[in-house]
Order: sequence, then structure tokens, then C-alpha cells
Amino acid sequence: MARLRTAIIGAAGYTGSELVRLIDLHPELKLVFVAARENAGQKLGAVLPSTEGVPGLGELELATFDEADAPALAKKVDVAFTALPHAASARLGGALYDQGVQVIDLSADFRLRSLPVYQEWYGEHPRPELLERAVYGLPELYRKELEGARLVAGPGCYPTSAILALVPLVRAGLVELDAPFIVDSKSGVSGAGRKALPSTHLPETAEGMRAYKVAGTHRHTPEIEQEISVAAGKDQKVLFTPQLAPMIRGILTNAYAKARPGASAARCIEAARDLLESELVTVLPEGRLPDTLHVRGSGRIQLGYAVDSRTGLVLAMSAIDNLARGASSQAIHALNVSRGFQETLGIPRIAMFP
Amino acid sequence: MARLRTAIIGAAGYTGSELVRLIDLHPELKLVFVAARENAGQKLGAVLPSTEGVPGLGELELATFDEADAPALAKKVDVAFTALPHAASARLGGALYDQGVQVIDLSADFRLRSLPVYQEWYGEHPRPELLERAVYGLPELYRKELEGARLVAGPGCYPTSAILALVPLVRAGLVELDAPFIVDSKSGVSGAGRKALPSTHLPETAEGMRAYKVAGTHRHTPEIEQEISVAAGKDQKVLFTPQLAPMIRGILTNAYAKARPGASAARCIEAARDLLESELVTVLPEGRLPDTLHVRGSGRIQLGYAVDSRTGLVLAMSAIDNLARGASSQAIHALNVSRGFQETLGIPRIAMFP
Amino acid sequence: MARLRTAIIGAAGYTGSELVRLIDLHPELKLVFVAARENAGQKLGAVLPSTEGVPGLGELELATFDEADAPALAKKVDVAFTALPHAASARLGGALYDQGVQVIDLSADFRLRSLPVYQEWYGEHPRPELLERAVYGLPELYRKELEGARLVAGPGCYPTSAILALVPLVRAGLVELDAPFIVDSKSGVSGAGRKALPSTHLPETAEGMRAYKVAGTHRHTPEIEQEISVAAGKDQKVLFTPQLAPMIRGILTNAYAKARPGASAARCIEAARDLLESELVTVLPEGRLPDTLHVRGSGRIQLGYAVDSRTGLVLAMSAIDNLARGASSQAIHALNVSRGFQETLGIPRIAMFP
Amino acid sequence: MARLRTAIIGAAGYTGSELVRLIDLHPELKLVFVAARENAGQKLGAVLPSTEGVPGLGELELATFDEADAPALAKKVDVAFTALPHAASARLGGALYDQGVQVIDLSADFRLRSLPVYQEWYGEHPRPELLERAVYGLPELYRKELEGARLVAGPGCYPTSAILALVPLVRAGLVELDAPFIVDSKSGVSGAGRKALPSTHLPETAEGMRAYKVAGTHRHTPEIEQEISVAAGKDQKVLFTPQLAPMIRGILTNAYAKARPGASAARCIEAARDLLESELVTVLPEGRLPDTLHVRGSGRIQLGYAVDSRTGLVLAMSAIDNLARGASSQAIHALNVSRGFQETLGIPRIAMFP
Repeated sequence: MARLRTAIIGAAGYTGSELVRLIDLHPELKLVFVAARENAGQKLGAVLPSTEGVPGLGELELATFDEADAPALAKKVDVAFTALPHAASARLGGALYDQGVQVIDLSADFRLRSLPVYQEWYGEHPRPELLERAVYGLPELYRKELEGARLVAGPGCYPTSAILALVPLVRAGLVELDAPFIVDSKSGVSGAGRKALPSTHLPETAEGMRAYKVAGTHRHTPEIEQEISVAAGKDQKVLFTPQLAPMIRGILTNAYAKARPGASAARCIEAARDLLESELVTVLPEGRLPDTLHVRGSGRIQLGYAVDSRTGLVLAMSAIDNLARGASSQAIHALNVSRGFQETLGIPRIAMFP
Repeated sequence: MARLRTAIIGAAGYTGSELVRLIDLHPELKLVFVAARENAGQKLGAVLPSTEGVPGLGELELATFDEADAPALAKKVDVAFTALPHAASARLGGALYDQGVQVIDLSADFRLRSLPVYQEWYGEHPRPELLERAVYGLPELYRKELEGARLVAGPGCYPTSAILALVPLVRAGLVELDAPFIVDSKSGVSGAGRKALPSTHLPETAEGMRAYKVAGTHRHTPEIEQEISVAAGKDQKVLFTPQLAPMIRGILTNAYAKARPGASAARCIEAARDLLESELVTVLPEGRLPDTLHVRGSGRIQLGYAVDSRTGLVLAMSAIDNLARGASSQAIHALNVSRGFQETLGIPRIAMFP
Repeated sequence: MARLRTAIIGAAGYTGSELVRLIDLHPELKLVFVAARENAGQKLGAVLPSTEGVPGLGELELATFDEADAPALAKKVDVAFTALPHAASARLGGALYDQGVQVIDLSADFRLRSLPVYQEWYGEHPRPELLERAVYGLPELYRKELEGARLVAGPGCYPTSAILALVPLVRAGLVELDAPFIVDSKSGVSGAGRKALPSTHLPETAEGMRAYKVAGTHRHTPEIEQEISVAAGKDQKVLFTPQLAPMIRGILTNAYAKARPGASAARCIEAARDLLESELVTVLPEGRLPDTLHVRGSGRIQLGYAVDSRTGLVLAMSAIDNLARGASSQAIHALNVSRGFQETLGIPRIAMFP
Repeated sequence: MARLRTAIIGAAGYTGSELVRLIDLHPELKLVFVAARENAGQKLGAVLPSTEGVPGLGELELATFDEADAPALAKKVDVAFTALPHAASARLGGALYDQGVQVIDLSADFRLRSLPVYQEWYGEHPRPELLERAVYGLPELYRKELEGARLVAGPGCYPTSAILALVPLVRAGLVELDAPFIVDSKSGVSGAGRKALPSTHLPETAEGMRAYKVAGTHRHTPEIEQEISVAAGKDQKVLFTPQLAPMIRGILTNAYAKARPGASAARCIEAARDLLESELVTVLPEGRLPDTLHVRGSGRIQLGYAVDSRTGLVLAMSAIDNLARGASSQAIHALNVSRGFQETLGIPRIAMFP
């Protein structure tokens, strides 16, 4: 079978860069079209220096892409990854979807099922009618729904780390639902995007740990709450604290919840293994804790659990690579499931260590 | 007045190194004696390369120091900083104290007021009768008690960051005491000490965020609980999660508690200013958050507060330099108060930025 | 065709770890045996945490391997990568070679063609008669010799970066041979190996740039000189200055030589393109300079050239990933050539960016 | 005696920030005026977050400052540090100098003695007649000239590191002058200034070593050549290669020159000690090499020497903190000498280690 002809709309950012790297490792995908409005006309090698001099890639020219171009592009590509700011992603991804292209969207546009919630956090949605068509691209939880899916909402990086850590506990009834969960997450600086900012300037970042958008103001809050609430069967609130850690990649999430009677580390681990364990999920044995270094560059998530009997709290921890498992490799993972490919096809199972 | 003749017992570790740096900036202190058992006989410049070639310091020879040497040393020094492993610190610091030397101890030996609690977490105490003589060296909370103090217990690094963030809220009645507090802290790697370990090897650390000794197993837990409980007037439990962040220095602490009715960021900030604000405490205005970079190398603590009405939780945050405010500069700070010096004498008030 | 059954002797170090990662991406290799004396009996997942939970890998048990085990192992494997300290590597790799196994050695044991030079820098060689059988595994220079090779000497990391930068200039007659070349190289800390040392302890490394083994004392000196001298057709001396840079991976090499009349950046670039350009070599256009970030995790080398007319000097620069191009991916690259596989099979062509 | 009333013109950049930190440690200086055009009207604490909450500093308001303001300011300040872009610095510093204020300039404007050379590298000079009044502020070489100096040219960061390493060898006749010197320098990212750029964005910097402005195109080239030529008594050319290393602070310089007969590491070390050794210069013993970590935050320079008999080359090495010894502490050092203060007054002699 011929390789799937693949497009990236929004190739100049970090999720785009990571898609380029991963697609090059994937035996069933062939990158044939790259768009990036601000860099249109430049060679990919000039914009992503990792591709400079790579035959067939570095010389690709970045195009512009507008809704009007969708019919023409649809004839040339089978699948498109859209990695644009919210609203733009739905608009352009939607146009391709209308033309029959499979769309894997890496923005927030198709993650929230509730239009009012989307509007509250992001503003107007350009294609609200597509919300119900989209499948949330977390393969461990939505494997069935992803089979054959033509519109996939790639989960957010922080939500991936929080949801996979907490949902097994909720499903197994190991945590109380009468109190909010606390999600304290630390992300590598690539999570802040490619634009150089004072807050990402190495001299003011390399020895700095700092939180931002705390106390219910970060847009990943409703996405985390949505999936936890689905698992809980009721509205469950989450206090989410995002932080920048002085490293390039990785998210370490600590989630806190009240233990229900009988909850123990062993039972939490068992619940996570029962629900999630697969080729790209490592549930660590008791006493071992996740580490972002151990998943860097791979599609893997590490999970670890502890229970503190002194305070009656459960600590659920996870480590992922924010650009791989938290974005681009998970998008490919979802594509693999949707197409019936082997789940990990083209996805590094093993981190770059060190 | 002649400078105080000063000794450091345990000069080869990082708190020792930081003491050497800070004592050199202090106009009333003169370093006259340095001991470090494993490096005895070596020049200070060979052990702390920052002092190599510094006239009068680099050529100082590291001595051994035993209890039997206390009477002789007591004739030559006015004040001794003890920075040794627990038990050793109490034994040797105690011997100097017996001889009339003022002792500022940077170990855990005099921090806990309860002997049984000490025994539970650390084992036998060599000088239990001294526990009641020691003053907890957190100047903002124990300024009065420190005046004239001859035995000072330098607070732990994590406890400093947690206690100063939480006590104002407890004292002002802004948080509920019926649920445990959660303290999620991230420390630079110098907090793990000077010994090279796999977990501090740069290739396995620079892109790694990881927790350790979670779920009530870290020894700073009872110290945090002690001071929170003093403020609360009742036993208050704390779940403490220490983490290593890939940087050299700094602690960022996020503490979570249930808000009492009427608690708001503004009231938390006001409570912290009322209780703590002084030359080395910065309570940030609403909307601004602490950053370890902004306090590095200085004796300053930054505090910030937010309240999340969605979940009813308070977030109290702090940033310190773990070796300065979290150990050595705070020890000098306490000494300054004990001697009636200007509080910040010899202590950098301004961080090295960047 | 069945996959080649592959062994790694010395799997617990960083080149071993990188081999494990890369072999898992290679469609023609299957890892069936891993040995690591000091970790024998442990699971691979416990020693290389990046493999924890990877089906079929994390549970592999690390074996011991001795010369006496060679006949038995030879029945089970087709190719062995030896990544051991010098002498041990030749001894064990030699034993497997004797049994008909293809051996790709990543130590220094087969790199030097002259036994006396080996003895001067490394001591006794356990299998001197094999020196003439080994092919130097730099595919761009020894492609022909590598075809069918059964014993490959994987080049050193620093030598790879220096030789590929300089040989094109020597071959094209663009530099004078009457003065020594200067090679000033900066390596990420993973180049110092996996053992935690004071010089690799993050707090004493993350803000430290320092040289080591300078002025002709580093063992990569004779390897660089050997290959430059082959190209020059005469003995050519090199002053080599290795340095540790505070990063995990990467080598940036600046090589200085006297320009011959007519040498220009454009001619240097042309010479490098003529000799080397291929799928894993990027010769940058004039005005662009190599960057370790742009090759990290990949088998790529970036080369750049400048000529300073004021001083009459040529500056030849290169960037590689020390563990990939400087060791493990280059070993696989050589294997691919030896077996007639597509040259880049299983080797990431694109760096992890960022 | 009252403290010197001190102004910083250009307080919002990194040399300004470092001046603020160091002036606060200096017993004879009092900061009374801060200007920063782009931040005029803001509080210092908002622009330099290290001063937020520092009584008397954080609330200082940044002013604008123009030539017309010089007479008024001259009544309020005794000394002004000018840390502006070239040309602006000479213009505004010159205006204050005209009014009798002592000016310590940290730009390049007064470093070059030759107007044509300045014009070639920087363009028009607004106050060329002041060039001959300025004293080059390298205290170890110009101590006499600095006494009473009213206009001081603070040396560049890279030049400081190169000149102090090489001048002793030139003066002692240990290196040949018939060939160019090579200066290969690696700087921490703060050397690139405070503006956030793609090349300083942490995700694209933290694992990147790269050179820039190579082959005689960096403006520090003529400054290095000027001082080497003064020492040599003849024009001496230098090839200078600046590089960014992934750290916040520090410069490590390796300088290469042909050894004259009889040159040895011991004689180089002796020459450096004879010429330079003082409270802020450490000439390391043979076999020890400079490390940026060992000087960070201090006014110290570390020097080390090696001779390679195989190639007949001398390697002269140095480590400094680019913002302290390479800019702000050296400016204060020069001021101390000019005023007859103790040379190291207010300057940290001991690095922040770690």
C-alpha cells in the first residue's frame, strides 16, 4: 500500500517540528505538504534547522493555506495534522474535513464537548457543529471510538498527564469525589511555544521555577475537568497549577485527592495497570516515581502512585514528554488506531536516555 | 569592636561553602577556623575552588574537630556554625556550647521541640537536654526569642519556604484547619548535597523533574507540621512532596489549603505583609508570582497568594534560595538578630539577576 | 529475511543505552542479548529506566559475558556491538569475532592502525593481530572498505567531529601542512560517561565550562592525527583541547589551520560537499554555523567553514550528537553499509528539535 | 565621609542589573539615580525583579536622561556608570563628564584609542576628543593610570578574558609574535544581552553550543588586538571565535600561540603571577584549569597555562564572570582604584559556589 500522503498545517512551531521528526520515522506516512503562514515561501530547512540538508525535506517550501485552498489540497493529501492557534485550527481543519481529508487537530478546538464551555474559555467557535464529530485522541481511553475516526482532537499536554494519572483512580473508586482534586504540574519551557519571550530567555529561565496562570485561570482546566467528570459520572472540580521548569521538554504532574477507605498504593497501581497498561504506558511498581528524563522523546507515559496514611491523601504522579506524548506522538498514536495500524508504528517506545 | 572570631564545623559541603562566601561579605565576622573531617589537612582552596587564590582564605587548612577539642577552640572563637549530619552536629555543637561558644546549628538537631518526634524521624539524640535551650532561627517569627540566643537551630530549607508561606494564613484565620495542608515543593539540585550521585549526575538530571521521599516520608515533614501547629494552636497535618528541579539553586513551594469564608488573595497578602514584611521578605502584589531566579544568592523570600473560588482553595507560594535563605544566610540573619546587629548585615538583599 | 539477532556487550553505559534506543527503531535488527558485568542479573528496565515497561525489553535480564561464553553466544547472535573499556572490548569482541560473529566495536581498541601508538596511549593490546582486520567505521571516508566488513572500529566522538571537518580541506589542498592544526572541542557531559563524578554533579557542572586533558594528553589525539595524516599523506600534528559544556549531548568542534593561497569559505564548503555530502551530512552554506541542538538525537553531522583574511586562518566547524553520530548511530550506520542495507536504515535523520 | 552619590544610566540591562546588586554591597556608594529610556516611569522593582520589595530600591523610579539633563544631574551625583549602546554612551557619558561627574563607561565607546579603528568597527564617534582622556579600566594593567581618573573605559567581557591571559606571555617573551594568536571563547547567554531572541530562547539554547560572528567579524577583535599590540610593541593580529554556551554566566577563553624556545607551563604561570597576581586574580598551579563556576558572581579571574611540546603551542586559559569581572564588578574595581579605596571594596572576592 502506498504511504499516506500527509500534510502539516502549522509546521513552524514545536508541535509541527515534532511531527516532522516523527513522520520521518513512520513507515506508512509521507510528508508532502507543509504550511506556516508567517514563514511562507521559506524552505523548511531554514525554519526547522533540524531538517537542513535532509534530502527531500529541507528543501520543501512552506506554503500558505487558506480555506479556499482546501479542495485542491484534498486531492493531494490523505491526512492533515493541524497545529494552529485555536479557532484558526478549527476553521482550516474543518475545511479539510469537509473535503474528506482525515484531520488530526492539535489545537484546543475539538477537545471540549460543550460549546458553552469552549466559548467561556476560548470565545467563538468557528465550526461548532463539528464538536460532536470529533473523537478525543487519548488512545488508552478512547481506543474504540478512534477506530475509523476522521476528526481527532489531540489532547492537551497537561491534560494528558493529569487525566491518565487520575482516571484509573476515579473509575476504580479509590478517591473521594466530594473534594476538588489538585493538579500541580511542571512543564519544560518548550510548552510555552516557539516565540522568544522574556519568560523563556535562557538567562531568566535556566535557574527559575515559577508558576503562571494559577487558581483556575489556565485553559487546560476545563479539559481536565471534562475527562475526570466523564470518569466520575459527575461534575468534578480541579485546581490546576501550571509551572515552568528550567528544562526543554517534559511534564511532571502531581495530582492530589482524598483517599477512599481501602485505597493503597498497590490498589492504585493495580487500577492503573488494569485500565491503561499497554505498549506506551508504564505503571511503575510501588516505591518508584516517574521522571521526565525517562520518557523524553518517546510516546511513553510513566505513572506512579503513593498513599499517605497520615493525611489520608492519594498522590498520583505522571511524567510525559510534552511535545511527544503530550502532542505530536499522541496524535500519530491516535492516527495509528484510527487506521488500524500497529499502535506504536513509527513512535519511539524508548526515551532518549540521557 | 573587633570582629567576631568565627568557626565553621563542616565547611566542605554546600552550606559550608555558602557560609564562607557570606562571612567574607560580613563586616563583623572573621573566619578563623574551618573543619571538615574528610578533607582534613587539605587547603580550603582545594576543597572550595571558589576560594582558591583568595588571600587569607584559600590557604586556610581544614582541621578535624572533636568534642575533646572544644575547650581549646572555645578560646579562639566567639561563634561557631555547625553544618554536619544530624547527631554529629548536636554532639559537636553541644560541646562548643558547653564551653560558652555561641552555636548556630544548620543541621536538623535542634529544630524539633519534641524529643519523641526527633527520635521517630532521626533516632537517638546525643544532647536531648539542649532541645529546650535552642531557638528556632526563623527571624520573622522568632525575632524576640533570638535576641541574645546562644544556641540557634537553623530551619530546614523546605520548612522555611512552607512555614513563611502558610503561617500568616493560619494566624489570620484565612484557612480551614479541618483538612491537611498540601506542600508541593521543587528544589534545585544543590539541595541534595555535594556528594555526586546518579540522581545528581548532569546527564540524568538536566532534563529530569522527579519527586522523591513522597507521602509523608521526608524528614522535613515534622518540622513543617511543628511550626504550622504552633501557629494553629492545634495539631495540623501536612502532606509534603519534595521534588528535584533541574537547576542549581532555589526552592519553589506551592502550598494548598481550604479557604475559610471571606479569604481572598488580597486578604492573604495583607496578612503576610502584616506578619512578615521586612527587609528580606517580599510579599508580591496580587497577580504576581514568586520565581526562584529573583531571589538567587540572596537572603530574600518572595511570597505570593491566590484564591480559587471555583474550588475554594488557597494557593500560597514562595521562592527562596535553598542555600542562602534556606540555610546559610538565614543562619547569619539569626546571628545578626541575636547580637543586635542590623538585621541584614552582610546578607545580600538583592539576588544575582540573572 | 529474518532480523539480525543482535547483542550488546556493555549495555549499561550511555553508548549501550543509545544502542538500545536505536536498535528498537531499526527494522532489520532484533536485540536478543545484553551483557553488563556490574549489573548482571538485573533487568534492563532497572538499569536503563527508559526501557522500564517496554514489552520485550524492560524485562530482559543483563548477563555476564566472558571469552568462554563466545562459542555459545555465537550460535544465537549475528552481530555484536561491544561497548566496553579498552582492552576488555578487544578481548571479548575478539572472542566473538573468532566465532564468526560480526563485531562492531565502540571502544578505542581497533581505531589505531599502529600497534606502537596504541601501546603508547593505552598499554598492551590483547589482540594486536586483529588491528589490520578492522575497518575504521567512518562511512563517509571508508564506505568501500566497510562493505562486507566483519570487524568495525567505531570512531571516537571527538575524532568524528574533527576528522570530517578537516579531511576535506586537506584532501583539496586548502590548508597548509607545515603548521599544527588546532582542534578546540566542547562536549556535552554525557561524553564523560555514566559514572557520577564531582565533575559531572549538576550543581558543579550546570554553570561550568572547563577544559580537561589539554596540551596533547587526551587519548583522542592520536586518532585524529592518524586520519588527518592519512589524508595529508604525511604526519600531521594536532593540538586537541577537549572541554565539558553544561549540556547533556553534543560536540561542537572548532578546528583552525593556516589557509593556503586561494582558500575561501566557498571553496572549503565545495570541498566538503564534494567529499562528504550524503544523507547524514549537512554542509552549511556560507555564513551559517553548526549548532549542536540541530543534530541532537540524530546521525547527522553539520559542517561549516569560514576563512579570516586578516589572519590567514581557516576555521572548520562541526556539530554532532556525541552519543549518536559520535558513537552508536555511527556504529549502526557502519553496520548498514557493511550489510548493504540502505545507509540510514533505522537512524534518525532529523534531530529532536527542540 | 558621605557615600558617593551614584547614578546608573542604562539600568535595565544586565550590566545595569549587576551594578545595582554590587552597589548595594559597597559601603562607599549610594545609588541615587537610575535611568532607562524604554522603562522610564516604571519602578526599578518591576524592571529588575531582584529589587522588588527591597526598601529604598524597588520603589526607585526609572528616569529618562538626556544631554540637556546633565547640568541638573551633575549637582546630585558624584559618579555615573553609563551602560548604554555605543555612541549613546559616549554622548550621555560625555555630557556628564563635561559637568564634572566621574564617568565609568561600560560601552565600547572609550575602549579603542584609535579613532579610525573605532569608526571602522562602530561608525561615527560623538565625542572623539574624549578618547585620549579615557583610561582603559583594567586595573591589573592600568593601576597607575586609573588613580584619579575621571573617565574610565570599562573593558569588554571577552577582551578582559583574552588580554589578561595573553599579556603576561607577551611581556615575558614566551610566545612568538610572527603568527596570529587564536582566541576561542565561550560565553554564557547573559552576554547576549537582556532582549529575548530566538537564539536565547531556552528550548533552542539549553542543549546548543554554537559560534557566531566568527573569522574577524566580532567587534571585540580590535580591542583585544589593541591591548596585545601595546604589550607586544607591535601590531599583533588575533583570530577571535565567540561562542554561546548553554549557561547563564561565565566566559571560558582558550588562547593559542606559538611557544618561544624555553617556554613552559611553569614559566607562563610565573609570568602571570609576576604581572597580575592580586586579590582578584588567581593564577592556577600547573595541571589545574580554569572553570567558570569557580568565579561566578565574583570579580575574580582564574588563569591557567599549558605548553604542548608535540606541537610547540602554548595554551593560555581564563575564566571570568562576564557580567561581574567582564563588566560591572570590574567597573567598580576601576572606581575603587581611581578613588583610592581598598581595591576590592564591595566586590565579592568569592564566587557563588555552587
